[in-house]
Amino acid sequence: MASANPPTRNAGGRRREREIYEAAIATFHRRGYADTSVEEIAEAVGILKGSLYHYIDSKEDLLFGILREVHVETDQLLAAARQRSDLTPLEQLLEYVRAQVTYNAENVEKIVVYYHDLNQLSPARADEIATLRRAHERYVIGLVSEAQKHGEIDPSLNRSLVAAQVFASVGWIYTWYRPGRSVPADTLADFIVASVRRAFASDRD
Amino acid sequence: MASANPPTRNAGGRRREREIYEAAIATFHRRGYADTSVEEIAEAVGILKGSLYHYIDSKEDLLFGILREVHVETDQLLAAARQRSDLTPLEQLLEYVRAQVTYNAENVEKIVVYYHDLNQLSPARADEIATLRRAHERYVIGLVSEAQKHGEIDPSLNRSLVAAQVFASVGWIYTWYRPGRSVPADTLADFIVASVRRAFASDRD
Repeated sequence: MASANPPTRNAGGRRREREIYEAAIATFHRRGYADTSVEEIAEAVGILKGSLYHYIDSKEDLLFGILREVHVETDQLLAAARQRSDLTPLEQLLEYVRAQVTYNAENVEKIVVYYHDLNQLSPARADEIATLRRAHERYVIGLVSEAQKHGEIDPSLNRSLVAAQVFASVGWIYTWYRPGRSVPADTLADFIVASVRRAFASDRD
Repeated sequence: MASANPPTRNAGGRRREREIYEAAIATFHRRGYADTSVEEIAEAVGILKGSLYHYIDSKEDLLFGILREVHVETDQLLAAARQRSDLTPLEQLLEYVRAQVTYNAENVEKIVVYYHDLNQLSPARADEIATLRRAHERYVIGLVSEAQKHGEIDPSLNRSLVAAQVFASVGWIYTWYRPGRSVPADTLADFIVASVRRAFASDRD
């Protein structure tokens, strides 16, 4: 496939591929995945439907690509926080929360598509995303656990429920946050990080 | 309409109507609103499609009825907490959070349908639900504001963001909570109430 499609290999091709993804995110967000046609996405990019098929095999490829990208980017945020060896486990967790809140607020259309259209994937691909999500959740639960061993979070708290509250805090954003109409992303991040800290840090104040 | 349909007026009719709603909730939850037919709901109740039309005019009536019911019941929880004149505003807010967490955990299928199929309503009916939701949100924001005036929540905190964290804590439950497989509803309610209290009460500990 790739050898037949040189555009995906050079900078211009990668740029065009990015444009297609961005157009797909905007169109799925506005009209819903089920009601969007490949033609509409091609039109939004300003290319012919046939040209679009140089980059993808199906509309579902685009949705799957978007959802997988959310996980790749989210994992990068988590890994970056984890690599901060200057920070304690709790501080790494809060650093991750800050990054994820900012990401969710700045990519709200992509996150809406993630949660809204996940169930439109074929079962095998939905399973693949579910596996990525579970791995992500386990990783965060592990970080909570480490903060508990480190004496930073009360060890009597159920670590899965602590993590669930963290996921609630960052996950809920897509349901209401609208860039430009809500508070700036960094104000929201400050607020949520401070709330999570007060809710779970042993040395409150 | 009602005079032509005595079953909706007596106890047997109301029981049957309830069965239809419960079957609709279970079927919409399992298959999604869009993929569910009125026949399937009638079959689940064990009646003919024609009999079902004694109770509703359309599939959308059922969805709208379910969504409106969520608001009626949620408003009742909020009003009950508000009527507790023995409680301070913050304690009323936490009492409401406890009741709403329990309700969401015990009615998780209905809440999944609420969030998942809201966008399947006709624009006029979707607006009606959105109006109910905004009124609910304003009411909770007002309660946060009162707790701030009462010195129970730091007045420097953005009351809309405090409320957003409360909505996140209760709203996220439907995405992961599964009765019988997760912690009991009252354990979850205790945990979330304690988290919200630690996050926002001025007199922590």
